[in-house]
Amino acid sequence: MTEGHPDGVGNEHRHGYTAEKTSHLKRLRRIEGQIRGLQRMVEEDKYCIDILTQVSAATKALQSFSLELLDEHLSHCVVEAAQKGGAEAEEKVREASDAIARLVRS
Amino acid sequence: MTEGHPDGVGNEHRHGYTAEKTSHLKRLRRIEGQIRGLQRMVEEDKYCIDILTQVSAATKALQSFSLELLDEHLSHCVVEAAQKGGAEAEEKVREASDAIARLVRS
Amino acid sequence: MTEGHPDGVGNEHRHGYTAEKTSHLKRLRRIEGQIRGLQRMVEEDKYCIDILTQVSAATKALQSFSLELLDEHLSHCVVEAAQKGGAEAEEKVREASDAIARLVRS
Amino acid sequence: MTEGHPDGVGNEHRHGYTAEKTSHLKRLRRIEGQIRGLQRMVEEDKYCIDILTQVSAATKALQSFSLELLDEHLSHCVVEAAQKGGAEAEEKVREASDAIARLVRS
Repeated sequence: MTEGHPDGVGNEHRHGYTAEKTSHLKRLRRIEGQIRGLQRMVEEDKYCIDILTQVSAATKALQSFSLELLDEHLSHCVVEAAQKGGAEAEEKVREASDAIARLVRS
Repeated sequence: MTEGHPDGVGNEHRHGYTAEKTSHLKRLRRIEGQIRGLQRMVEEDKYCIDILTQVSAATKALQSFSLELLDEHLSHCVVEAAQKGGAEAEEKVREASDAIARLVRS
Repeated sequence: MTEGHPDGVGNEHRHGYTAEKTSHLKRLRRIEGQIRGLQRMVEEDKYCIDILTQVSAATKALQSFSLELLDEHLSHCVVEAAQKGGAEAEEKVREASDAIARLVRS
Repeated sequence: MTEGHPDGVGNEHRHGYTAEKTSHLKRLRRIEGQIRGLQRMVEEDKYCIDILTQVSAATKALQSFSLELLDEHLSHCVVEAAQKGGAEAEEKVREASDAIARLVRS
């Protein structure tokens, strides 16, 4: 697990997503609500197909969240590393490619 | 939204997943924990790639949940409808196919 | 690999998809054309993003094909096995669930 | 459709994937072979589940191909655009994000 602030104290730059923190938290709370809704559906013996529909909706919401996060990561962290060039650029691209592969395969 | 007990009060048969209710609820609570973990990571400005890794894990957990639910649905509701035959069998298969398409595309 | 005609010679019933053979072959030939189009794009040094767009289109076409095949399999083989009941029904459902899992995860 | 050589004649730089052209073509020919194998299976009335297994294999092969292409695109085109900075960097990131979203959703 990488530390939260690799750039250190006093550095204005955080991560790509910092500016969007509030909107990200709102999204994640909505997804948490969807998961709790699923628990209620199971408790109330709702029809399997209706539960599956809600699972698909929650999965899609998680997927959109990750695509937004990835876009911000490319726009900020990857672009900055590319400008520094060399090993750091390569490392950031490799890391992003691995994350994309995990998303595509999940 | 289909009602929870289409077969009516006093009918022993519920849905395919009823027997597995406790295990389903446990799984969904674990996924809820993953989503809350994601909120903490965003709040603490964790590194985007680490967040993306957690989102992939939660997505995979949701996917496994839906595959289990679907398997139970096929084993119970679809098999029973097939035994009754006719329009009910057709309707259940069409409904299951639609749910599968939503899963594959999400 | 299961044999083509498990029900033996002289049995009118083939697989779920036999009736749809012509339409399936047409679809697969179109997908083959998409893959050859991709080879041409690579040979002509087309822009990566345009190639990726075509790969997504071919992937979606394969996915639709598999969803149609699966729907026919449920409607015919699984429904018939369910009507026979017992171990055969269970086996067919397990087999279908495994195929669905492979689709969802691919 | 973007032109093959946006950088013009005489420019040594092509696309990220040019160096890998031979390996890409080999991969695509193998996928074409898988699609033709599927046509044979349909023609010979092979068992639906076996066909579905082969469709999943072809889908995974297409997916790996697109992940490799995307990695090369990020390593070359996006990194170079980032070094130029400004509107071009933004445009390349947006374009890559859109391609990733298409992959994740297909």
